[in-house]
Amino acid sequence: MADTFAAALDDFTRRDWQTLAPDAVDDPVRVAVVGLGWFAREWALPGIDRSAYTEAAVVCDVDPEVTAAVAAERDLVGVAPDELRSGAVAEEYDAVYVATPNATHLEYVEAAAEQGKAVLCEKPVEATLDRAERLVSACDDAGVPLMVGYRMQTDPAVRRLKESVADGALGDVVHVHATMSQTMLGELGTDHDQWRLDPDLSGGCALMDIGVYPLNTTRFVLEADPVAVFGTTRSEHAAFAGVDEHASYRLTFADGVEAMCSVSQTAQHASRLEVTGTEGRAVLDPAFYEREDREFALERGGSRVGVEFEQVHQPAEEFAYFGHQLLAEEPFYPDGEHALGDARALDAVYESAETGSVVRLDG
Amino acid sequence: MADTFAAALDDFTRRDWQTLAPDAVDDPVRVAVVGLGWFAREWALPGIDRSAYTEAAVVCDVDPEVTAAVAAERDLVGVAPDELRSGAVAEEYDAVYVATPNATHLEYVEAAAEQGKAVLCEKPVEATLDRAERLVSACDDAGVPLMVGYRMQTDPAVRRLKESVADGALGDVVHVHATMSQTMLGELGTDHDQWRLDPDLSGGCALMDIGVYPLNTTRFVLEADPVAVFGTTRSEHAAFAGVDEHASYRLTFADGVEAMCSVSQTAQHASRLEVTGTEGRAVLDPAFYEREDREFALERGGSRVGVEFEQVHQPAEEFAYFGHQLLAEEPFYPDGEHALGDARALDAVYESAETGSVVRLDG
Repeated sequence: MADTFAAALDDFTRRDWQTLAPDAVDDPVRVAVVGLGWFAREWALPGIDRSAYTEAAVVCDVDPEVTAAVAAERDLVGVAPDELRSGAVAEEYDAVYVATPNATHLEYVEAAAEQGKAVLCEKPVEATLDRAERLVSACDDAGVPLMVGYRMQTDPAVRRLKESVADGALGDVVHVHATMSQTMLGELGTDHDQWRLDPDLSGGCALMDIGVYPLNTTRFVLEADPVAVFGTTRSEHAAFAGVDEHASYRLTFADGVEAMCSVSQTAQHASRLEVTGTEGRAVLDPAFYEREDREFALERGGSRVGVEFEQVHQPAEEFAYFGHQLLAEEPFYPDGEHALGDARALDAVYESAETGSVVRLDG
Repeated sequence: MADTFAAALDDFTRRDWQTLAPDAVDDPVRVAVVGLGWFAREWALPGIDRSAYTEAAVVCDVDPEVTAAVAAERDLVGVAPDELRSGAVAEEYDAVYVATPNATHLEYVEAAAEQGKAVLCEKPVEATLDRAERLVSACDDAGVPLMVGYRMQTDPAVRRLKESVADGALGDVVHVHATMSQTMLGELGTDHDQWRLDPDLSGGCALMDIGVYPLNTTRFVLEADPVAVFGTTRSEHAAFAGVDEHASYRLTFADGVEAMCSVSQTAQHASRLEVTGTEGRAVLDPAFYEREDREFALERGGSRVGVEFEQVHQPAEEFAYFGHQLLAEEPFYPDGEHALGDARALDAVYESAETGSVVRLDG
């Protein structure tokens, strides 16, 4: 018994996808980082550094002062957006990480595809379904590898949860509850990151910015796509006049599993993912934020095992996977087609919120 | 600070409704218990005994052997259903507690009302909305006090949660998640209790039997009624051929608050109520079962207080409230009109499940 728990703990943070050892890497993937907002500066660039499979090479932002400051601080090449898109420094990088506002992903991904560069694009993949499809097509047509930045998918707690489901530890999944909320105006702070409030740049706020976590993580864990969605959105504060401040939505899967999800940009900071099956329940709480310790719990019958584990640096893990798959010439799980599943569902939730009706996705 | 916590702990299980001291009671309310299933035998009768405001006097079941056995064991008057309804032993009791299958509540409540007896009727109040309305009217017309057996409403954890909401500790409530599931076939066991699988007797299964907990507790805690509902039901196992085995439903309140609820009769035993507001989150987990220790947690900003407390015997607390309000001549909060709010919402969820559309309750 003790051996079982010891082995489970030792294995908890294993990289089940890793075939190429980190110390076998001589030439890590050189990454150009586009869009130097809070997440890129505080999480992505440190993550790229920590990963053995990647290294930062170029940085780029619409704000030349930000570009210059980050380039100087990290001793990287700093370029303006049109330089990057034109390929002026294309010999400096192997891949492009796009962390710009949602509605500007397309222009950078199209440019990277034309240059034959691999792409890691932040989620949601674009501001609208139409633009998301164009983005994925651009990579497909150019034959460049596209990964979408679902950092939960390389988090060990999420991977272990997915394995629990796949191994039948929960029996048949019956329902899922997932929630994510934050005090956005307080937490994100600077104006630089408040493009999320501009519908033209973001495509929406609560759903696009955080709704994607309950949605994508549920899809990933269940290895299934919703066949129907139903949702509502609403806004109270003036800052959210043109976008959704709160959203709740239900995802229906082919086998009748229902995922009940809620997100808010102005509620108590919290996040939770709970998967209940005929024989067990698995919980991550907190679940979705990169800056706090996830806890994993599994209940079966009257017993419960709770796992506190050495957290990974989520962006480091995500970039390690990105670089590893490129160097090992393996495909990405969260690829363009996978991301379009989110784009279709998000589009359908907005449609449902407008019409008040269920929107089918399997038509 | 320590004083604050000490006072909060000392006050946690207080009966905020109690004006008449238990030791001032000379003549407790004499209760006739109708329907001697598992809950009445294992929980209600012991609860009546433990409460200073009530005492068991008469027992009655459709099965004469069960009636005789319980009467003998507890030294009570045992009567057949038609005797009870005819008032043959009406001088033996002051109130009737109805714990029979849902669709038979009406006949016992009508008889009790004719006899001028106070009624405590189990929830859901009847098998259909129409019969629920007739039941409530019978008591109104006869002028007898009617309470409906929402044992969560006298649980201190739920009362403290309601106070947190009312006092603004959570700010404005944004969303609620509530779930309840059990392995019904295994947990309830005997055939005697499996009338829940008979749609004529139960009016439905997962929603009627356990769906009422997330629904009613949310209504109670928010002090609000849903203005719209949306839900689905489904069944997989043969035992649930005529009724709902799983259900998920969303309650929309006037201020836009959405409660995302799920219940299952064949999933991992679990229950949870989570209320998230602009300034805090309150959680009961486990929440709804009488046979396990509730935990209360309140989070605000980056802080969390978790309360483990001396659990009450829920039916004892419920019967104490029932007897107390009768002796103090005070009204019940969960009265007939309150129970009709549940009946209307449950009826609307079944309608929504059939039509696939949102059903309004404020029309």
